[in-house]
Amino acid sequence: MLGRFISFEGPDGSGKTSVLEQILPEIRKWTDKNVILTREPGGSEIAESVRHIILKPENTAMDSRTEALLYAASRRQHLAERVLPALNRGDWVITDRYVDSSIAYQGVARGIGIEEVYEMNQFATEGLMPELTLYLDVRAEVGLSRIERNRHVDEINRLDKEKLEFHQQVRQGYLQVLERFPERIVKINAENDIDTVSKECLEAILNHIRKEEETGL
Amino acid sequence: MLGRFISFEGPDGSGKTSVLEQILPEIRKWTDKNVILTREPGGSEIAESVRHIILKPENTAMDSRTEALLYAASRRQHLAERVLPALNRGDWVITDRYVDSSIAYQGVARGIGIEEVYEMNQFATEGLMPELTLYLDVRAEVGLSRIERNRHVDEINRLDKEKLEFHQQVRQGYLQVLERFPERIVKINAENDIDTVSKECLEAILNHIRKEEETGL
Repeated sequence: MLGRFISFEGPDGSGKTSVLEQILPEIRKWTDKNVILTREPGGSEIAESVRHIILKPENTAMDSRTEALLYAASRRQHLAERVLPALNRGDWVITDRYVDSSIAYQGVARGIGIEEVYEMNQFATEGLMPELTLYLDVRAEVGLSRIERNRHVDEINRLDKEKLEFHQQVRQGYLQVLERFPERIVKINAENDIDTVSKECLEAILNHIRKEEETGL
Repeated sequence: MLGRFISFEGPDGSGKTSVLEQILPEIRKWTDKNVILTREPGGSEIAESVRHIILKPENTAMDSRTEALLYAASRRQHLAERVLPALNRGDWVITDRYVDSSIAYQGVARGIGIEEVYEMNQFATEGLMPELTLYLDVRAEVGLSRIERNRHVDEINRLDKEKLEFHQQVRQGYLQVLERFPERIVKINAENDIDTVSKECLEAILNHIRKEEETGL
């Protein structure tokens, strides 16, 4: 594998999408490599069909483990069709959500367990984890209020209907993931204004690259 | 868990469906418990949607691990909605295919590996394995010729299009599964006529129950 693989994580409303839009042009100034931004299911037709089942508001009978397996299936397919070919070409791949989302949402908030969800996802990814993860930390109240402001009613899917409590558990989930993988994950305070958040994310990425280049990796 | 959980396994064309039809009335004579016959996705709407993605002939880009994860998701949902409630009521559940199918098809024939597929399925089933598995053994040539005879062209799905070689690998897969779990699985020669196969299956089930009752389990 030649390319770089970086993930952005955080609860809904943490501002990942806006931040990624801002920093992508900056990252492209720093490297002559092709930098692609991706998001599961990310244009894979099969992964898209799987995601459709997960997000269908009528599927309230869905078991948590089914949900975790479906996310892993969608992730696997997206990885096989999009991410791995790009990394093998030497591209940089920046992904909006990856395994940590499943650990926080299904592992912690749904109560399956961190290690179980992590291990099952190792089957899906064959152990491919990002070299760097930026975790955009935001309290549930702040994240939810941002969602309400930005989204139309007809866009609200099954997950958005979950209560505040669930979003609080997701954040606790992310904080546990951070504790489990402290070397890979950088926590960013995402309650600041977007320019500050973007600046800190970009710095974290550039620091990581400089450090790697210094140690000759 | 109060009920009994028994699975039937074997390559396509091994005659599971016909045998199950024959022996079900016989089993019902032996017990006053409710005996249900099931088959993934087995009437679970969510599991059915997942199965639809797997079997869609156009989905030729599907990665083997995606396929294994989707089967596990469908299995999980069917388990949660149908099998576990029945077992908890004390019913006997006889299932046409279960985890061993994934091990033989994805683990061996698709080359992912027995242990990896087994472990991932433990996530899906929370470790619930049948107390008895009847493996209907048939050579690939025999199984395939039975399929050709019985099925219409418009029923042929993606999996049926695989070559003879794949079916041979599936059989090898089952033989490896048998070696891995010798205490749980009984091998039946399914190249015999259906009456003989049914008789042997029924005997194996009744022997298992008698043995359990004798040892006071």
